[in-house]
Amino acid sequence: MSNGWMISDNSLDIKELLKNESIFNISNGYIGIRGNFEEKYPDDYPTVRGSYINALYEEVSIPYGEKAYAFPEAMQKIVNIIDAQDINIIVNGEGFSLFEGTVKSFQRYLDMKEGCYVREIYWVSPLGKELKLKISRIASLKYLELFAINYEIEKVNFDEDITIISSINGDVTNFTDDNDPRVAAGHSHILSVKSVELEDEIMQIASETHNSKNLVTVTTKHSLNVANDISFEKTDTSIKAIIKTAPGKAIINFTKYNVYTDSRRYKNPLKDGFKIVRELSKMTFEELKKLQSDFLKEFWSIANISIGGEDKLQQGLRYNLYELLQSVGKDTISNISAKGLSGEGYEGHYFWDTEIYILPFFTLCCPKLAKNLLKYRYTILDSARLRAREMGHKKGAAYPWRTIVGGECSSYFPAGTAQYHINADIAYSYVQYYLATGDFDFIKEFGVEVIFETARIWLEIGHYHEGFFKIDDVTGPDEYTAIINNNYYTNVMAKHNLKWAVRLYNELLLKDEELLNELCEKIALTKEEVETFEKASDKMYLPYDEELKINAQDDSFLSKAIWDFENTPKENYPLLLHYHPLTIYRYQVLKQADTVLAHFLLEDEASLETIKNSYDYYEKLTTHDSSLSCAVYSIMASKIGYIDKAYDYFMETALLDLEDTHGNTKDGVHMANMGGTWMSIVYGFAGLRIKEDHISLNPKLPKHWSELKFSFKYKGFVIAVKVNKDKTEVKVQKPCSINLKINGRLYSFENNTSIEILN
Amino acid sequence: MSNGWMISDNSLDIKELLKNESIFNISNGYIGIRGNFEEKYPDDYPTVRGSYINALYEEVSIPYGEKAYAFPEAMQKIVNIIDAQDINIIVNGEGFSLFEGTVKSFQRYLDMKEGCYVREIYWVSPLGKELKLKISRIASLKYLELFAINYEIEKVNFDEDITIISSINGDVTNFTDDNDPRVAAGHSHILSVKSVELEDEIMQIASETHNSKNLVTVTTKHSLNVANDISFEKTDTSIKAIIKTAPGKAIINFTKYNVYTDSRRYKNPLKDGFKIVRELSKMTFEELKKLQSDFLKEFWSIANISIGGEDKLQQGLRYNLYELLQSVGKDTISNISAKGLSGEGYEGHYFWDTEIYILPFFTLCCPKLAKNLLKYRYTILDSARLRAREMGHKKGAAYPWRTIVGGECSSYFPAGTAQYHINADIAYSYVQYYLATGDFDFIKEFGVEVIFETARIWLEIGHYHEGFFKIDDVTGPDEYTAIINNNYYTNVMAKHNLKWAVRLYNELLLKDEELLNELCEKIALTKEEVETFEKASDKMYLPYDEELKINAQDDSFLSKAIWDFENTPKENYPLLLHYHPLTIYRYQVLKQADTVLAHFLLEDEASLETIKNSYDYYEKLTTHDSSLSCAVYSIMASKIGYIDKAYDYFMETALLDLEDTHGNTKDGVHMANMGGTWMSIVYGFAGLRIKEDHISLNPKLPKHWSELKFSFKYKGFVIAVKVNKDKTEVKVQKPCSINLKINGRLYSFENNTSIEILN
Repeated sequence: MSNGWMISDNSLDIKELLKNESIFNISNGYIGIRGNFEEKYPDDYPTVRGSYINALYEEVSIPYGEKAYAFPEAMQKIVNIIDAQDINIIVNGEGFSLFEGTVKSFQRYLDMKEGCYVREIYWVSPLGKELKLKISRIASLKYLELFAINYEIEKVNFDEDITIISSINGDVTNFTDDNDPRVAAGHSHILSVKSVELEDEIMQIASETHNSKNLVTVTTKHSLNVANDISFEKTDTSIKAIIKTAPGKAIINFTKYNVYTDSRRYKNPLKDGFKIVRELSKMTFEELKKLQSDFLKEFWSIANISIGGEDKLQQGLRYNLYELLQSVGKDTISNISAKGLSGEGYEGHYFWDTEIYILPFFTLCCPKLAKNLLKYRYTILDSARLRAREMGHKKGAAYPWRTIVGGECSSYFPAGTAQYHINADIAYSYVQYYLATGDFDFIKEFGVEVIFETARIWLEIGHYHEGFFKIDDVTGPDEYTAIINNNYYTNVMAKHNLKWAVRLYNELLLKDEELLNELCEKIALTKEEVETFEKASDKMYLPYDEELKINAQDDSFLSKAIWDFENTPKENYPLLLHYHPLTIYRYQVLKQADTVLAHFLLEDEASLETIKNSYDYYEKLTTHDSSLSCAVYSIMASKIGYIDKAYDYFMETALLDLEDTHGNTKDGVHMANMGGTWMSIVYGFAGLRIKEDHISLNPKLPKHWSELKFSFKYKGFVIAVKVNKDKTEVKVQKPCSINLKINGRLYSFENNTSIEILN
Repeated sequence: MSNGWMISDNSLDIKELLKNESIFNISNGYIGIRGNFEEKYPDDYPTVRGSYINALYEEVSIPYGEKAYAFPEAMQKIVNIIDAQDINIIVNGEGFSLFEGTVKSFQRYLDMKEGCYVREIYWVSPLGKELKLKISRIASLKYLELFAINYEIEKVNFDEDITIISSINGDVTNFTDDNDPRVAAGHSHILSVKSVELEDEIMQIASETHNSKNLVTVTTKHSLNVANDISFEKTDTSIKAIIKTAPGKAIINFTKYNVYTDSRRYKNPLKDGFKIVRELSKMTFEELKKLQSDFLKEFWSIANISIGGEDKLQQGLRYNLYELLQSVGKDTISNISAKGLSGEGYEGHYFWDTEIYILPFFTLCCPKLAKNLLKYRYTILDSARLRAREMGHKKGAAYPWRTIVGGECSSYFPAGTAQYHINADIAYSYVQYYLATGDFDFIKEFGVEVIFETARIWLEIGHYHEGFFKIDDVTGPDEYTAIINNNYYTNVMAKHNLKWAVRLYNELLLKDEELLNELCEKIALTKEEVETFEKASDKMYLPYDEELKINAQDDSFLSKAIWDFENTPKENYPLLLHYHPLTIYRYQVLKQADTVLAHFLLEDEASLETIKNSYDYYEKLTTHDSSLSCAVYSIMASKIGYIDKAYDYFMETALLDLEDTHGNTKDGVHMANMGGTWMSIVYGFAGLRIKEDHISLNPKLPKHWSELKFSFKYKGFVIAVKVNKDKTEVKVQKPCSINLKINGRLYSFENNTSIEILN
């Protein structure tokens, strides 16, 4: 066990179990398995037993009391798939359970270097049989279909035989809660078993969703190091292997290889399931673990951040990055859902969280994975075009607020479809990727079309008024204010979207006119239309309050009454669960960073003074009821120099799930916040920014940190940064033409590989 | 048949039948029966076979894709009750149907003096039997439980026996359409048969709603003038009388007495049903008709409006007033639903339509009925208080946007709960009633508490900003603009609400301090709070645009882009069925009169110049997609002097249902518009206003009208007005202290009963 790389929680408290099911999920971006106990809990314990495949969805109808035009008829939701976790150990008629007999010791931990989740148990049965168990789980990062469970069983005070009962079960349901808008409502039975097969001691269940006809299979093979007698029992929805091991003192080593396939990725998911499990089960669990740790070694070589003087934090931080890796879709049909693959909160949907909170990490640490996430948006461009037409827009694409395969899945448009800014967020993330990687080939193939089509929407929904280009009736990031005019965030991001559409048009004209012509023909884009982009960008109205000297969140925000924070009891947060939206919309109160987020993403659009004033003004009004808030406040506090605040906000993000500060980790971990943690350090304390022709750093360490080290990739080079009280060191592998500003001064790596600056 | 008092439509066109089911509804404010054919249509014909009891509701859950705090969990909806319409005539094995054999003649008409709906048919069966039928229906205005059908059957060319099969049927469903927000979605099976009884040849079915446990019965007795042989057939949900009449040439006269009772009004609805039907069936159909025409004679003696030179219009106008009488709830637990009792559109809900569009007619023509409607609001005051608490308001009452028994039934809050103006509308209608009747006893008992509690809400949702009292995040009458700040209509009506709360407080202090003290104690109202009402009223912000010299609809309306009317094809209206709400909200486009309505209701709050400018500005932007719009534009066109426009808008209202200009009369007739028709004449062409200390008239006749005559009641006196090209005559029954302004000049009835002014 290596210090700082382990997440551990040995509680068997009923209140902690649900949360820990999320925390100890093991996932690989394709499959995700919640940290349920193989042997289950007692019947009356709350549990959400869940296994998921990224982007494997059911289509369900959306009910409305009063339905209006172009409200989405149906939506996609993630499916709780066939459960392969069940393993029960029977000793002399007694079943192993942590809730019976005596637990002499119990620890469970996630090892983030090994990529393995382990339970180690010393158990005495009610009749006195003593067992030592080590139960390990891997969701393979190399072979994405594989979820493997390994049992090491030691008989301490007996040598009778042990029976292992291992099953797969297709009788599963999704979790619902009608009263929490952050969890799914209705539709819990969405998957039906199609076949239950047994072939050469390999078990397989295939199930299908009712409407979307997505097929999923799990194919399971067992391996055991001791003599045994195996038999099987089948029902209509499950299949069970009953493995009687021979008596004797030998330590039993048992591995259950579960291979998931699905019809969105595999032509013959049933056949492929058998084939793949046969292949992969040739490897021992130890061999699989080796591959897993090799994979992670490479990941951590760039992703790891080390903080001197903060062990607990170090751990929390790594957990967040580990979860990001676990959750990220590794093909272009999947993305990162709001809860990763750790739970059903937000129904497995992809939001702007990916672009604004998560892509920065991947863009700078794993650009190959970032590329997939961006490509995903390209694959759903047609759906976004269709949605734009539905919304009455003649041109362009309107990206859905929440989706799996591209259709709008939000049934509450004031905090959904009205958030047009997602268009600009997607464009922004392409531009950031381009600036960080310089990968024009990718941008021209998969980015430019997206940026053109997203830009077009602003012309559709905006108009000129008193000489300015204005955008009415949108909702910004802050969901506690809805359907307003000239949201600063939306307008400034739209300006960026339009500006880059023009730039990329011109760049493509120079570099690949043929491709440009093809594209323009395909989407009927003319030079004249591009000129309208330029004009709208130039004339974009950015609300500014002369008296407060801040950018106004929107046209009317500053004239509203201020929320009565003083008389709002603590238990009334998050406000959305205690007040009607109208009541909330009526006041100056923010769920999350809005103008302050815009000032982070596009800091050059406002003066430092305005940014500081805005921060001071909005901070007092922000509840941080969204997990997307604290990271941004941390980053901006760092920028402004409020280093203690920056630290406090950062701490909120770093341990949000591990300490369940939002009280809903049971529904899954908060991916955007996890990306935000990384940003709080790299963009916050280190002050990194990717500018058009350089990168800049403005390091400011919290006072009790002795050192901060991190790396990132920039235009193909690995850049390693080390900051301590006295100095900042930046290293590259070899001399290169990278320009780096530290604290506003420009340095070059033309002739050197290391820059060292005294703070 | 009396000219101008008949509504007739002899079409058997499949397209007209559904509309005519609504048009020929017969109702009495308690029961309502759609104009379905007794013998039904062919199977593939569209029909909504419907019978309703006002305020008899089922409670159904409201589904949401994403539910937020204080969204109503359930709502009430009107119930399609047990059908008693079925009567089939069998001649020698051939069933009478207008869609078989030969229809030699067919006419159907509603006689509005007699209160009777009649079909007269000369029919030849496929085998050549000739029948003359006269089928008459009454929903008794005197005995509200009674729905009677009378058949006169003449055998023209045969004298064999005829069989009459008459049934009542409890196997009924509500009509639903998921894609039209103006019709109900989901929940069609909401009523189940509890008992089917036969006692002394009286048939009875009792049914109950599933959730609200409202019981409804129909008890049916037959009467026949010829020898006959009667037998019965019962099923689980229906009961059928098979009446074989003796052969011979006598004209058969057959009456079916159907008595409806329900558990909301009757302690023993089953027993009472039998009792009442026994009692009422002692009267012949002719006797019932006499009572009906007596009732109507009294009604028309005040309500009738006669227009010289416009026969068709005259008829349409009377139809509208007749429907108002048919639809109005005559106890205090029911009101007037948006479609009366003619269909299921808007689910039998009561809206602000009652106060602003319908009460003026009743207040001035049938003040006793007006009183019931106002009392209804008093009976649901507790629900409105509860709703205010749900919405987070510490004090006051928030009336539901749509309801039957008081709970908010709107599941789309931007065009529902956000329309806080309903509070002020209710207060306004109490004040108008008070000004018109002088009935302080009623106001102090049932009005003041409502006006205090509604006034309180403005202090809850408003706030001071730059010295003005402002109200944010509401929706005004125009549902094409939602959730905006300082809607002129809302603010000016709130000002009126607050002002009258103060006035009535002071008036009660003078006239009945004891009652005031009791009331203040009951609702914890202090003098200090009343002072806050006064201040808010005085400082109420009323948006005004200096450049356009109009009252702005709200703070941001005038800075939005103007809807592209030119490129909106006709078939895209109503816009709400062709554009997403967000798209509509983004533009300057109105569904219905908003500021212009405020200028009508509170004309003294703006100068005539502003009123004219507002009219000119908003008229161009108004689609009149709501049936609540044209009447207001007609009234205000009259006021401004646009007499041709006034006439054109008036014609839209007068024939809206008869000519089905909105294409949805099938779902029921448009009650608010019907009240609007009356207002277009009395408030429009005659220019009547009820002021604080006088009434005023400003008559302006459309050019092809030779004469206009109408009456109304004012402070207990009947005032008769006659306007023609040359002069205006106003008569009262006896000299009285009424002050009357005509064209701005004050006249008195101190010593005379008639005033005659040359125009």
